[in-house]
Amino acid sequence: MLGISLPSIFGLGFVGIAGAIAMISAILLAFWILKQPKGEKEVSDLSEHIYDGAMAFLNSEYKPLTVFVIIIAIIIIITDLPNPSAYAFILGAFCSALAGNIGMRIATKSNVRAAVGAEIDIGNGLKIGFASGLVMGMMVVGLALTGLTIVWYLTKSAEIIVGFGFGASSIALFARVGGGIYTKAADMGADLVGKVEEKIPEDDPRNPAVIADNVGDNVGDVAGMGADLFESYAGSIISAIAIGVGGFTLSGVEITSEQAVFYPFLLAALGVFASLIAAIFVRPGKGSEIGDLHNALNKGVFGSAVIMAIFAYFLTNRYLGLLDPFYAFISGLAAGIAIGLACEYFTESRFRPTQSIAEASQTGPATNIITGFSVGMGSTLIPVIAVCVAIGFSFHFAGLYGIPIAAVGMLSTLGMTLATDTYGPVNDNAAGIAEMGGMGEEVRERAERLDAVGNTTAAIGKGFAIGSAALTAIALFSAYMAGIPELEQLSITEPTVMIGLLIGGLLTFVFSALTMSAVGKGASAMVKEVRKQFQEMPGILKGETDPDYQKCIEISTKAGLKNMIIPGGLAVAVPILVGLWNPKILGGLLAGSIVTGLLLAITLANAGGAWDNAKKYIEEGNLGGKGSEAHAAAVTGDTVGDPFKDTSGPALNILIKLMAMVSLLFVPLL
Amino acid sequence: MLGISLPSIFGLGFVGIAGAIAMISAILLAFWILKQPKGEKEVSDLSEHIYDGAMAFLNSEYKPLTVFVIIIAIIIIITDLPNPSAYAFILGAFCSALAGNIGMRIATKSNVRAAVGAEIDIGNGLKIGFASGLVMGMMVVGLALTGLTIVWYLTKSAEIIVGFGFGASSIALFARVGGGIYTKAADMGADLVGKVEEKIPEDDPRNPAVIADNVGDNVGDVAGMGADLFESYAGSIISAIAIGVGGFTLSGVEITSEQAVFYPFLLAALGVFASLIAAIFVRPGKGSEIGDLHNALNKGVFGSAVIMAIFAYFLTNRYLGLLDPFYAFISGLAAGIAIGLACEYFTESRFRPTQSIAEASQTGPATNIITGFSVGMGSTLIPVIAVCVAIGFSFHFAGLYGIPIAAVGMLSTLGMTLATDTYGPVNDNAAGIAEMGGMGEEVRERAERLDAVGNTTAAIGKGFAIGSAALTAIALFSAYMAGIPELEQLSITEPTVMIGLLIGGLLTFVFSALTMSAVGKGASAMVKEVRKQFQEMPGILKGETDPDYQKCIEISTKAGLKNMIIPGGLAVAVPILVGLWNPKILGGLLAGSIVTGLLLAITLANAGGAWDNAKKYIEEGNLGGKGSEAHAAAVTGDTVGDPFKDTSGPALNILIKLMAMVSLLFVPLL
Repeated sequence: MLGISLPSIFGLGFVGIAGAIAMISAILLAFWILKQPKGEKEVSDLSEHIYDGAMAFLNSEYKPLTVFVIIIAIIIIITDLPNPSAYAFILGAFCSALAGNIGMRIATKSNVRAAVGAEIDIGNGLKIGFASGLVMGMMVVGLALTGLTIVWYLTKSAEIIVGFGFGASSIALFARVGGGIYTKAADMGADLVGKVEEKIPEDDPRNPAVIADNVGDNVGDVAGMGADLFESYAGSIISAIAIGVGGFTLSGVEITSEQAVFYPFLLAALGVFASLIAAIFVRPGKGSEIGDLHNALNKGVFGSAVIMAIFAYFLTNRYLGLLDPFYAFISGLAAGIAIGLACEYFTESRFRPTQSIAEASQTGPATNIITGFSVGMGSTLIPVIAVCVAIGFSFHFAGLYGIPIAAVGMLSTLGMTLATDTYGPVNDNAAGIAEMGGMGEEVRERAERLDAVGNTTAAIGKGFAIGSAALTAIALFSAYMAGIPELEQLSITEPTVMIGLLIGGLLTFVFSALTMSAVGKGASAMVKEVRKQFQEMPGILKGETDPDYQKCIEISTKAGLKNMIIPGGLAVAVPILVGLWNPKILGGLLAGSIVTGLLLAITLANAGGAWDNAKKYIEEGNLGGKGSEAHAAAVTGDTVGDPFKDTSGPALNILIKLMAMVSLLFVPLL
Repeated sequence: MLGISLPSIFGLGFVGIAGAIAMISAILLAFWILKQPKGEKEVSDLSEHIYDGAMAFLNSEYKPLTVFVIIIAIIIIITDLPNPSAYAFILGAFCSALAGNIGMRIATKSNVRAAVGAEIDIGNGLKIGFASGLVMGMMVVGLALTGLTIVWYLTKSAEIIVGFGFGASSIALFARVGGGIYTKAADMGADLVGKVEEKIPEDDPRNPAVIADNVGDNVGDVAGMGADLFESYAGSIISAIAIGVGGFTLSGVEITSEQAVFYPFLLAALGVFASLIAAIFVRPGKGSEIGDLHNALNKGVFGSAVIMAIFAYFLTNRYLGLLDPFYAFISGLAAGIAIGLACEYFTESRFRPTQSIAEASQTGPATNIITGFSVGMGSTLIPVIAVCVAIGFSFHFAGLYGIPIAAVGMLSTLGMTLATDTYGPVNDNAAGIAEMGGMGEEVRERAERLDAVGNTTAAIGKGFAIGSAALTAIALFSAYMAGIPELEQLSITEPTVMIGLLIGGLLTFVFSALTMSAVGKGASAMVKEVRKQFQEMPGILKGETDPDYQKCIEISTKAGLKNMIIPGGLAVAVPILVGLWNPKILGGLLAGSIVTGLLLAITLANAGGAWDNAKKYIEEGNLGGKGSEAHAAAVTGDTVGDPFKDTSGPALNILIKLMAMVSLLFVPLL
């Protein structure tokens, strides 16, 4: 059977069909969600507020985004880059923005429906939340696949298709960096005045920033996460094309240019089916416990991975005629799962690391912070080794081409992993709506159980996003290096490389410092506004006057968009300038940014996640429970962790990929 | 005049004489210090306690250290490495340990004398503190130069002289990592029970951990800093020898093997004289303000740099016959000053960054932490660029040989820079003794002014230690790479390099996590002991019974030595194992560890320094002053910063140099 290629079934047409099926599934699911009951007016009004706020952010974002896209398109056209790159760039930006727009629309329509659904039965809540996630997942996968297929079909050019990836990167920059600043400026601003100064509970409708906070969950965790993974997904396929397009020989078997290009496409297309099949099994029984809910989602994640592995085995065997690239694929898939599980271990209160943070809270906030930071740094061990093993294995079996294939492997079941990720913020919002709308103790308790499951999937999702960003960035970096022949002999003994490595590492630290201080600035503007509203309208705290939610949303939006200019500008401009100066230094810069960025991103994400759950662990009644000194210390840790895990950490994913993508795009000029 | 070599004056003999003069100056200064009055019995007893505690730590350290040195020596002998490497190794360890021992002895004898001296006149206090620092500085420089001269004179082997450096690294590991854990376990333990629980002031003699805390300042900031810089100093010369030993041609001028080897030696020897000459100018007038005290020390630092630049110009011109290596030298000297000033800017409360942390304290500990962390990360910008410029310049002018010469340049005036560094902990102790011994308001106020100046020099010193560690590590790394010819073609496109980079970066994060959690464990043991003493002996808090200081010193000692085994073992074993497996991965590992280690070390050091000074800024009466909520938040930041700046940050200096040194030592086996 080996060596029989199957172009009759497996071709670009098949990929296009898979993309279309993904989008159609998303649309059908969206209509199903919209048909679900949205409850009493009081409750559905809250959802409307969140929806309006989310749309307001998107609409504000689109203005500078459009300007940015036009400027970049013009730059592409006036340089010596092929002109169609500019159209591919615009298409990439459009597809990613559309996926985010639809995903966020549905997420903000689903939250209230999940809460109302949980009123009948907790399984219903899970189903709606998961369906909403699947809309996002399938939209991202469908639009990315379709877009890439169109560009390849029309141009057959590896140079041009990079433009599509850069378009996706641009959206990711706005959604993840701008969105990350938005969400934490709102969250911290709401907490610092509401919880700390006025002692009103979280998600209290009297807090003027409460809607901005809930919008933020969608902006950051739905749109931001979606755009981040859209970029990784497209980037992994693009780097495989860039490296493989010339064709090559593997273990004596010749891989033609067409095979090398179609193979990652076909893997991704099969991933759509693996995700959809596995989604059918995400069905909780009635009256489920947290463990059962968890199992339902796990069936989806692990089920899709197993199905995908089987698909990939047959595809590789039949289409390429040798199994070596399959091993590269599997190494990425396995690394993704290992990273997700490691992040779960380090951030879940069932395990020792998070408990040690909770215990350290008993001696005050300082020991809480030190322990959390130490846990975060220590948590880099398994993910980094997983990435190293994936690189080593994939290169061993399939050469440089193996590295992007490993990234494709990690991302092949993205439809499913993104669905379980997006499930988190939807049910977080559902719990908030249940609280704000006074839906009764039982519903709230159910919604919170659904939210707790979401927190775990979110932790895993963050790890997965970081791991896939790193692997994709390494694949893009490899493609960059392969694209400039004289870099082949670029030894790390050359001081230029060391300088590049240092500058690359430096960028990740400076970028994190900028995003972190942006949150501080945004939060401080929010604090002033909330204090002002409480002062000027005393009726708010008495529950007599509605606060001005809109004003707070505007402040967050402005903070997000204004404060991303400098870090975003750095991410785009520095690689171009350095590359024009010396492509060798740029090579070192990319490598340095990936290494340091990966480590810093994991540290920030896991420290933040662990602080969050250490606080929840104490709130569950451990070590003195709510109101104890340990709890106060843990709240400090949780607040510190907010910009760590939701702004600066995820923003690094974008930085490392974006810089690699920019470099790859401009290779022809260097 | 160009091209005339001057072997009649400038030879190894000259270097040996310079080393001897350095040691003799140190001994004369030490006798002068010991002749100064040590005050009333109550006061001098406190100093005795600190002295005894410091010696107890050293003596406990010597046991495992001796075992470690013997094991490594045996390993060197049974492998194929030249046997004399083992003797060089033992000599290096002995010289560094001796320098630390003498420096710490004198520092712990000087503290009380500085306090008593300040009683007469504040300038006296400065003179004694500075003299004590100069003993340390001259001992380090003298023993390093003499030891290296002996090894070179006897063996003329670049391979063997690396053994000396590795000996120095081993001491640095024990002194800096073990000492760093010691000092912060004591400090945090003392504060958590004393200041937080019992509300007794800092440096209160009723606190059982107070002597351990004061011992810690000497263990960490005197012995640890000294061993760290001894390692850098020796390492910079050794790497210049390793790279230059074959001779080479520069701008058409042939540099013989002897010239290439003697040049760094001669630069270092001239540095002794530059430091001693400049030391004469460190003389404050009577009744000086902080600014004047500061100026006195600055005259020493900048004066020695200027004198050294002139010396280096003439030496290079005359001895080598071309100026190119002089530019390499100057780039290192200038980078050291730039890094020191940058660290001062980011950690001094006169400047914006530290003030922004103080302001953020007004909204609680969380915003204090976030702002401090962001300041720390942002503070990497100038130091990293300074290192990059130094690498670029030195390589441009003098090729690979230029890089260690830049490191030699940065470290050439070490006698002076270490003197101003060590001045800090001596006067910190002096202020503590003035407080504990009840020496009266005026003396205490003077001692604190001296201490404040010391804090600035300490901040600069830390930056300088990090910068020189990075540059030395890069020089050692270059020597390693140059020592394995097949690494010449090691392109960073090879995934092995990327894997190496990732593992190297990973090690710095895991190492920091380990040292940070070691402090936590040590502090928690200390907390238990202090609580126990307060409970079992109620007379302590009433001031009727003396606490058991000894027991606390033992706990810190045990915590320091026990908890350094795993991180220390990693630092030695990982490069050997990785190198035996694949020297290419080891090359990447070293580069990755240097890049990430430098960034992380600067972040940790400057965040810690800035938190410390933000607290002091509030205590000076700003933003509500002592007792305000902002102050409480700032105290949290200060405590978090303790292990950042005094344990994990400085420990990274050792990690990156030690790994490079181990690798260079084992090159012949790879």
